Amino acid sequence: MDALDIITDLDNVIPFFQPIFSADEHRVIGYEILGRYKGNEEIESLGPFFLDDQIPDEYRLEVDNTVLSKALDMAVDLDKDVLLFINRDADILMQDHGEQFLQMLQQYEEKGISLNRIVLEISKLNYKGEFDHLDHLLNYYKTFGMKVAIDNVANDNNQLDRIGQLGPDIIKVDLKALRSTATGPAFQDVLYSLSLLARKIGATLLFENIEMVFQLQFAWKNGGRYYQGFYLCTPCDHFVGRDILKDRLKNEFHSFIVSEKKKLESLYSMTENFQVTMQEYLTRYRKIIDYEELLKALVKHMNDIAFRVYICDEDGFQKTPNFFFTGGEWKIQREYLQKNWSWRPYFLENIIKMRYEQKGILSDLYSDIETGETIRTFSYPVNANDYLFIDFSYSFLYQHDGLL
Amino acid sequence: MDALDIITDLDNVIPFFQPIFSADEHRVIGYEILGRYKGNEEIESLGPFFLDDQIPDEYRLEVDNTVLSKALDMAVDLDKDVLLFINRDADILMQDHGEQFLQMLQQYEEKGISLNRIVLEISKLNYKGEFDHLDHLLNYYKTFGMKVAIDNVANDNNQLDRIGQLGPDIIKVDLKALRSTATGPAFQDVLYSLSLLARKIGATLLFENIEMVFQLQFAWKNGGRYYQGFYLCTPCDHFVGRDILKDRLKNEFHSFIVSEKKKLESLYSMTENFQVTMQEYLTRYRKIIDYEELLKALVKHMNDIAFRVYICDEDGFQKTPNFFFTGGEWKIQREYLQKNWSWRPYFLENIIKMRYEQKGILSDLYSDIETGETIRTFSYPVNANDYLFIDFSYSFLYQHDGLL
Repeated sequence: MDALDIITDLDNVIPFFQPIFSADEHRVIGYEILGRYKGNEEIESLGPFFLDDQIPDEYRLEVDNTVLSKALDMAVDLDKDVLLFINRDADILMQDHGEQFLQMLQQYEEKGISLNRIVLEISKLNYKGEFDHLDHLLNYYKTFGMKVAIDNVANDNNQLDRIGQLGPDIIKVDLKALRSTATGPAFQDVLYSLSLLARKIGATLLFENIEMVFQLQFAWKNGGRYYQGFYLCTPCDHFVGRDILKDRLKNEFHSFIVSEKKKLESLYSMTENFQVTMQEYLTRYRKIIDYEELLKALVKHMNDIAFRVYICDEDGFQKTPNFFFTGGEWKIQREYLQKNWSWRPYFLENIIKMRYEQKGILSDLYSDIETGETIRTFSYPVNANDYLFIDFSYSFLYQHDGLL
Repeated sequence: MDALDIITDLDNVIPFFQPIFSADEHRVIGYEILGRYKGNEEIESLGPFFLDDQIPDEYRLEVDNTVLSKALDMAVDLDKDVLLFINRDADILMQDHGEQFLQMLQQYEEKGISLNRIVLEISKLNYKGEFDHLDHLLNYYKTFGMKVAIDNVANDNNQLDRIGQLGPDIIKVDLKALRSTATGPAFQDVLYSLSLLARKIGATLLFENIEMVFQLQFAWKNGGRYYQGFYLCTPCDHFVGRDILKDRLKNEFHSFIVSEKKKLESLYSMTENFQVTMQEYLTRYRKIIDYEELLKALVKHMNDIAFRVYICDEDGFQKTPNFFFTGGEWKIQREYLQKNWSWRPYFLENIIKMRYEQKGILSDLYSDIETGETIRTFSYPVNANDYLFIDFSYSFLYQHDGLL
């Protein structure tokens, strides 16, 4: 396909639409507008054309605008709450400070496409200008009600800070990585923290390239509200019925919900069990006043369960050494006495919770800062002042379905 | 200062050491090694020299190695648990696949500086090669026990994914941004999610450029374990006593702990109050069977408190419209009926907790996905199946010290 062919044949430059579905309504909430060229034999994506730096900007812009105006002409009849996701190259957009783009949208505003239905997907991977200038433009667009999506997060060039600074309405996460074997377990951790960042700043997560049901589940579990991908609906040259997947999505999400609730219930009941067991032990050993002696007694029951046990006061100072299980026995690590753990995420929060409720807390899965192992910690109030911490070993978690 | 002057006068190239303190021990746990040049009049930083692309790599490397070997000569006598943070330029390091650097360190290993005390701070901002190759080298170093720190997170070129992929031992966060007025409130949100990512992958957060006490508190509150900066100790040409700040840090952290516990206690007791109030209301209106009627009665008490109230079942489906406070009155938004919220972070987790404990939950601060306002949500079990959600307005939070 020659670039010149396309530029001289704008009649055959057409928009394609990829439906985007939402987890809260199970229906189409918008379309990403894509560019296609109707060649002699087949319909080709204009993606490579738009990304080709060799093609002068004004040609790419003209083709881009052709796609957009044809798309908006068709979109005039859509429901008044359907979003339109429009991709723009940051560099080309900035050439006229985004004026032409805005004017075009404002023409269609008069025809009934309100600017608050426009989501500008800005791909900034190769943006060569000043980020401040681009942010300025995006904030200007926002004053018209336009939404801004940041593209290509969770690829190589992700910029956590820029997300914080720009405050996008939507963050796109590409799940292509989830298929490849190169994806470490950390992908999950990264998305987890991204989903919490999105919640904190009020941004919506849109997962793209969903091609299998497990990716849909993964997206749902990680705070995804919007979804697109071949698994749901391929792009085509027309709009689809908004409820086209309503029943299917309702069923699929229902099964995700059921399975997640089961996991949470099993976690909850395991926590209750730890709680009861710990209460029994502490009652049995209530006459042991000295904490180190108490731990010596307790760890006898924990060979195959925990690898580290210690007691802290409510300010986070360790009142005992670590009891650390290694090489088949419990070693006492005195250098941990008086260390302080109040700086750890959740530490003081959990202390206050335990103090008021006099109940134990089972942590989420996280990586131990010394061993690097995936662990959970069970913490439990020994009395009104001090708290017992039990780090469960990976092998114990592994053996108990539901703990991993 | 002329580059040639430095290269021809290696005798006056010397190491400086900036102490790094830990929150768990309140003492020096290591030093960052910095390069200095003793000129005629003053001691100058070699930072600009190392960053100057105009200077041939081999010269920069020679100066860098001079600093390092002099530093390691001095470090031989340090305690055997003191860490040494060494900066290396990724491009220069990769030129010989990191061999020379490793050999140098191994020579000092024989003199007693174990490789697991070496923290390689790799600044990758301008790295021009393949990240895969660099990662390969870093993972190779790790097999010798060396630790890897990623530099310059929370600046413009942060790469959340690369953190996930590489799994650094230490993530450095520069707090310089915290002084400037350009820092949005989102800086806090970004660091919050970074601290949770660090916890998940088992990385330690090191905050640098701490120049004021509020930055130390900020770092402590955001999961920082290691700290450095002028507020603590300026770099100098010798090592300092490890306990040089022990008392001061203990006092300062103590005041952070006290203040944080107070906040948490006040949050806890406010939650209890909401709980009691809600119980009273639900008892008072227990005869109202229809949920919409129930909400109509409830919201009368909430004009100055909440801006959105609704009821969901335990799968997250809305069983009532939204009651939304705007323009001085409660509007009913029927389009929210049957929407599903199970995909929201914490949603199902909180449902299960409420179901078992039959108690309400007050959320942390987050941004409302529709209004963008900073809010908290109080959720409460209406009965065995359904749950009430009350979104507190920003103005209410603002009026109640402790809720913001």
